[in-house]
Amino acid sequence: MDPVDVLGATVRVQAGAVTQAVHEHCAEHGLTWPVDFASKGSSHVGGNIATNAGGVKVIRYGLTRNWVLGLEVVLANGTVLEMNGALEKNNTGADLRQLFIGSEGTLGVITEATLKLARVPGALDVFLFAVSDLAGVLRLFREARTGPFSIMAYEFFTDACLARLMRHRKVRAPFEAPSSHYVLLEVERSGADEAALESWTTSLFERGLVADGTLAQHSAQAAELWALREGISESLSATGLPHKNDVALPIASLEAFCAELGALFASRYAGWEICLFGHIGDGNLHVNVMKPDALDKAEFLRRTKEADHDMFALVKKHRGSISAEHGIGLLKKDYLAYSRAPEEIALLRAIKKTLDPNGILNPGKILDQ
Amino acid sequence: MDPVDVLGATVRVQAGAVTQAVHEHCAEHGLTWPVDFASKGSSHVGGNIATNAGGVKVIRYGLTRNWVLGLEVVLANGTVLEMNGALEKNNTGADLRQLFIGSEGTLGVITEATLKLARVPGALDVFLFAVSDLAGVLRLFREARTGPFSIMAYEFFTDACLARLMRHRKVRAPFEAPSSHYVLLEVERSGADEAALESWTTSLFERGLVADGTLAQHSAQAAELWALREGISESLSATGLPHKNDVALPIASLEAFCAELGALFASRYAGWEICLFGHIGDGNLHVNVMKPDALDKAEFLRRTKEADHDMFALVKKHRGSISAEHGIGLLKKDYLAYSRAPEEIALLRAIKKTLDPNGILNPGKILDQ
Repeated sequence: MDPVDVLGATVRVQAGAVTQAVHEHCAEHGLTWPVDFASKGSSHVGGNIATNAGGVKVIRYGLTRNWVLGLEVVLANGTVLEMNGALEKNNTGADLRQLFIGSEGTLGVITEATLKLARVPGALDVFLFAVSDLAGVLRLFREARTGPFSIMAYEFFTDACLARLMRHRKVRAPFEAPSSHYVLLEVERSGADEAALESWTTSLFERGLVADGTLAQHSAQAAELWALREGISESLSATGLPHKNDVALPIASLEAFCAELGALFASRYAGWEICLFGHIGDGNLHVNVMKPDALDKAEFLRRTKEADHDMFALVKKHRGSISAEHGIGLLKKDYLAYSRAPEEIALLRAIKKTLDPNGILNPGKILDQ
Repeated sequence: MDPVDVLGATVRVQAGAVTQAVHEHCAEHGLTWPVDFASKGSSHVGGNIATNAGGVKVIRYGLTRNWVLGLEVVLANGTVLEMNGALEKNNTGADLRQLFIGSEGTLGVITEATLKLARVPGALDVFLFAVSDLAGVLRLFREARTGPFSIMAYEFFTDACLARLMRHRKVRAPFEAPSSHYVLLEVERSGADEAALESWTTSLFERGLVADGTLAQHSAQAAELWALREGISESLSATGLPHKNDVALPIASLEAFCAELGALFASRYAGWEICLFGHIGDGNLHVNVMKPDALDKAEFLRRTKEADHDMFALVKKHRGSISAEHGIGLLKKDYLAYSRAPEEIALLRAIKKTLDPNGILNPGKILDQ
């Protein structure tokens, strides 16, 4: 990694730099690369860019795409492209950087990047709310967008996720009365004082927008609330066999999608528990279905293929994405057409052919040659 | 324009929608499309997207690219591409939308778009500061990034611009003592109170970061301060014959670039007044040089070509952009290679050939076929 350009708020790094090491490199200057997720301790910047990584802060900062200024890419024919340097604005024809960001290494190999940095946010406040249904989760989201703060994260999970987490982690329920949906809201309050946050929260109770809620009083408590959300994935695996998907929907379609998904499973996959959670503020939904105890593992795995097929049909119907963050790779190639029109796939293929005529870059990924 | 999707904070519009009409359409919901500049009353959304428009709020919101979710594009062969719907996250292969955004209509014709909306910002505060040199402008920028607010705009102009504005508009000097550089800073203070802003300003004086400064006390005064910045372009044309350029530099190179530019003109174009202003917070510099009274107009126009050549060489040396916002079109084709490497231009050409083999889309723009 080069030294941080503090005035320009940028840093040049090689593709192999570990995400968290970049954070640490920038922190002493009060700056950060706001691409942040659980695997930051092992993920590489090049991979973050090649997959246009998301994470829990997308609602505040957007995807990785927004935090890349310059890009060095090696093309299939060996040409080294150096694009855009450290410029924020450069309207000189089509922006070729964008082709490589998120293309999973199929169009070129990212070797270096100039990253745009953000200031480290100020004090953060973490709320946990109990709400009665998904409509309530979305209503609260709309409300939070006008609150006296900037939203850093807006995450939700259902009672099914919480129950498995409590079993695995041996933690207590966050509220006295159980609820079907929970929202974790993290905010940067900038100049707003504690009283402004409390009066905002009070108005939520008064208007019946939340059934219960808490505001972490210190960082240890904030970490406990975050652990509820971040422990879900591990808890599902520890208490059963989950089959995982990572879809995105237009926010306005989330409620209809989830209702239809519930009905689909009730009728065709009776007894399969659905555990929903995710970064709902950007439409991203983690759909985990759990193997019923009575069902044989091989049979479950076989039937998850059918279930994916059915679920992706619902995603397609609601114009969603079959892969919000995880990409296409090999596993989802058969479903690419559920989120991209045939005309678009034809153009993807033509561009692949232009950049990599012999198909030597990450062959077989995303598209068959 | 379709009705605003308030929950999803999006709106679907045709390419011919006028930017300001989109703003008005969304305002009643407390939402806005944060693409904003002086010509918003006549510019079209399709053009904004095709040129990846910037404007004075780029430092807060980024370029137009960040505010486009779905895109409908007609290709040269008549194919209609519908891309990405209303999704924030959709990692399913290369993001083809990005190819069309900023390509000046040379790769496809944008016909509709689903725009991402932001909430209308809260109360804004406008400062004007006098500083002694460009280094001071940049020092103050760095300081402002850690202030108790979000920066909405960070604009600067020199005494040469102010002098012409005062002559043309018959306005008084903003401060008693003249200064060589001025900074207009607009902020959204979120929850911070007036006292926090004042104590921030006081610390600037105490540390000698500004020579003078004022904080608008009401909206009329804020508008007066903005008029100083926004009246520059008109005032230059009204008081002489300007030759205009719109370049961008890495922020860390701005000072060296401006010093070398001054030296270049002093030695080769003696008597040409340089008027500098722009959105310096994102590295964008408007360089206007004024025809000396004694110089014949035709001779001036002839020599501006030489001057451009010399200036663009400096831009290239500092890895800047010869066109921060205005694009390439026909006028800057000869200088494309000053901001894009030969390998990159070859790839631009290959992609143009793939998408528009007969060169029927905006022919002759950006690249010769």
